[in-house]
Amino acid sequence: MPRLVVIGGDAAGMSAASAVRRLAPEAEVVVLERGHDTSYSACGVPYWIAGDIDSDGDLVARSAAEHRERGIDLRLGAEATAVDVAARTVSYRTDDGEREVAWDRLVVATGARSVLPDLPNIDAGGVHTVKDLVDGRRIIEALTHAPQRAVVVGSGYIGIELAEALVARGLEVTVVEQSATPLPIVEDEIGHVIADAMRAKGVQLVTGAQVTGFSAEDGRVTAVRTAADQYPADLVIAAFGVVPRSELLDVEKGAKGGIVTDAQQRVPGLEDVWAAGDCVVTKDRLTGELVHLPLGTHANKQGLVTGESVAASLGAAWSGREFQGVVQTAITKFCDLEIARAGLGRAAAQAAGFEVVTASVDTTTSAGYYPGAEPMTLWGIADRSSRRLLGVQVAGGSGAGLRIDAAALALWSGLTVDELVMTDLAYAPPFSSVWSPVQVLARSLAKALTA
Amino acid sequence: MPRLVVIGGDAAGMSAASAVRRLAPEAEVVVLERGHDTSYSACGVPYWIAGDIDSDGDLVARSAAEHRERGIDLRLGAEATAVDVAARTVSYRTDDGEREVAWDRLVVATGARSVLPDLPNIDAGGVHTVKDLVDGRRIIEALTHAPQRAVVVGSGYIGIELAEALVARGLEVTVVEQSATPLPIVEDEIGHVIADAMRAKGVQLVTGAQVTGFSAEDGRVTAVRTAADQYPADLVIAAFGVVPRSELLDVEKGAKGGIVTDAQQRVPGLEDVWAAGDCVVTKDRLTGELVHLPLGTHANKQGLVTGESVAASLGAAWSGREFQGVVQTAITKFCDLEIARAGLGRAAAQAAGFEVVTASVDTTTSAGYYPGAEPMTLWGIADRSSRRLLGVQVAGGSGAGLRIDAAALALWSGLTVDELVMTDLAYAPPFSSVWSPVQVLARSLAKALTA
Repeated sequence: MPRLVVIGGDAAGMSAASAVRRLAPEAEVVVLERGHDTSYSACGVPYWIAGDIDSDGDLVARSAAEHRERGIDLRLGAEATAVDVAARTVSYRTDDGEREVAWDRLVVATGARSVLPDLPNIDAGGVHTVKDLVDGRRIIEALTHAPQRAVVVGSGYIGIELAEALVARGLEVTVVEQSATPLPIVEDEIGHVIADAMRAKGVQLVTGAQVTGFSAEDGRVTAVRTAADQYPADLVIAAFGVVPRSELLDVEKGAKGGIVTDAQQRVPGLEDVWAAGDCVVTKDRLTGELVHLPLGTHANKQGLVTGESVAASLGAAWSGREFQGVVQTAITKFCDLEIARAGLGRAAAQAAGFEVVTASVDTTTSAGYYPGAEPMTLWGIADRSSRRLLGVQVAGGSGAGLRIDAAALALWSGLTVDELVMTDLAYAPPFSSVWSPVQVLARSLAKALTA
Repeated sequence: MPRLVVIGGDAAGMSAASAVRRLAPEAEVVVLERGHDTSYSACGVPYWIAGDIDSDGDLVARSAAEHRERGIDLRLGAEATAVDVAARTVSYRTDDGEREVAWDRLVVATGARSVLPDLPNIDAGGVHTVKDLVDGRRIIEALTHAPQRAVVVGSGYIGIELAEALVARGLEVTVVEQSATPLPIVEDEIGHVIADAMRAKGVQLVTGAQVTGFSAEDGRVTAVRTAADQYPADLVIAAFGVVPRSELLDVEKGAKGGIVTDAQQRVPGLEDVWAAGDCVVTKDRLTGELVHLPLGTHANKQGLVTGESVAASLGAAWSGREFQGVVQTAITKFCDLEIARAGLGRAAAQAAGFEVVTASVDTTTSAGYYPGAEPMTLWGIADRSSRRLLGVQVAGGSGAGLRIDAAALALWSGLTVDELVMTDLAYAPPFSSVWSPVQVLARSLAKALTA
């Protein structure tokens, strides 16, 4: 009986394991998970901290017991320490000592880890990262001690979402960001809208400021320090980003050290080894470059692709499914402000060699005369020579964020801004102006390209 | 100085007139409008009747005075009665008698008219169509007489939207529909969801019933009659649909008598004549067939294309913009239920020769664990041999409707269901399950195609 070993029991790993269990029932499926949670929504952790979700159990899509009932040999508290690709074994550490398991097929789905730069007192009590349920439990526990002042360091998705969560919990929140506007993966035109929304909710937003370290007393954090100032804190969220956990495989690495795979998630050069999820890099369809995008949506898709490919290697019929790259779509919100992006920003487009034009437009989430219409701002970028759309970003009221899906599919299919203007998007007064917001933007881009 | 004459002063006509005014400033632009309103949102009329919008003025994007200030010779109360394409004249009727105007370029944007079948007492007082601001004013006036019971005949978009409006106004509302479920341009799977929502709001929904006529006393309607029953009414909305006003041109006609045009909205066989908006037919991109889709979004786009083409014929630089057909995207709502469709229904797909599979799925508007997640139902159809997506329909809570844009662009670009599963759509717990709803549907279709 062939044995699949999966390293990592969250989205990518358990999607792969479940697919193999279903498609190749004769295979033995072993999953090594270093923690004690499986198949949970890491993306939901900020909303649990905010109090929107009652318990961490709500975030678990399928429990360890459910996976075991389906015949998966799930080993919790089992941290893989080495992969021997010649001997086809994985070594792993448990509370009871070192173990080893042999594999015929191996899936590496080790995820990502939070970056913790080497700054004074970053290991003090009260400084938290936000990556998994364990982090979430620690912060929920910290909130029971009634902290008054929180400082969020970094304003990527996690920083923005934790700022929202801690505002919801009634804390005084300061956000320290080294860029000129929050959420640096959007352009300043959108960043200013986010900054206004954060300040309107009482957040003290400090931009253009590099954190130099932390003050601590008795091993507990008391302030966040920048070159120019310091910000008192009972609770600190260190949201410096994440990097792939890719050390187990000695293979070609891409951005941030992510494992390079082919479209079936196989690791080139290694026989019978796949990798998926936050530990890999994936192809940006617009530039062809490999990027690291640790998002649940990609992890689930790559896990499915991996599982189907593993099952096919064991004799099951293959669906033909491959992971076809990304256009860097992402969405989040800060309180009532929805924020989304797809495609390239200005710097990335220029770095990829495009000669670009940009445009931004202000419109409304429904027909301007319809009650409840809220402002929305769109920013876009296009390639001068081909007139292809390269990127769209949006911030606005209810309904603004999901507009990005139209842009994402236009980018996916390589539409020019001219064709996008003429596509058949939905219109009725409660939902849209008669020219859909993405098309209003596309018209501005077309005009800018012709000017 | 060349003269453009535009027949019709709403979305398509005024878009064309404005574009010519802007791009070919030397041209004389004359617009003949049989009514007294210009550039208004016909789609907004139901929401005005509902009381969501204060005044008809809110629905006017640009007034007659504003158009005139921009140099358009706008003639209101001027109903075109004949076009002489050889002599290049239009005859029109005014309160002051018959007139004639010569043209060098002609744009026919005469719109559509409400269908009124030849049924007993259909011309009784209290029986209203809903097409334009004049209709809206009549209904608003009728509501001042405190009608108690309204019957809406037909449950297309207008029927659904008027049922909502009259519920909002506190009337007892009955809807009589000849099909088995409301909104016959969606499949029964979605129609049942709509039916439940209508009944939950107290609407008496009568399906499978053909209206045979109206009862009247002293010239005022008192009831709507079907073969089996009758429904007392102080107010009747006759929503039998619309047909193109295309009689002025003796040229090739398509579905429902709509004028056939090329992609620049020129009328084949007639020199220097264009047609745009609700009076034309347009190409469905999936079947290649000509369909009549009287929607403001198409009228605006076709008007722009027309104006740019006319201006180019007068020597202006041409943008290259053409109207590239439709995928029959549409969106509406009934109270809190959002409803949308794109592509083909089952019957249309079969009639076009596709061998089809269908699927439907129930999901939620955000991650299931996220507070406020509401149910949504999707239905889809795909072609067995090519595995191409052919159509998607959706009904659900807040945010469900605009999901159709992702489907519309997938249909626009001819994506297979397999590729759609792998596209990069937005995910975060407040907005979506980790597989976007359209992708959940696409996975079901892919599975059905493989079975």
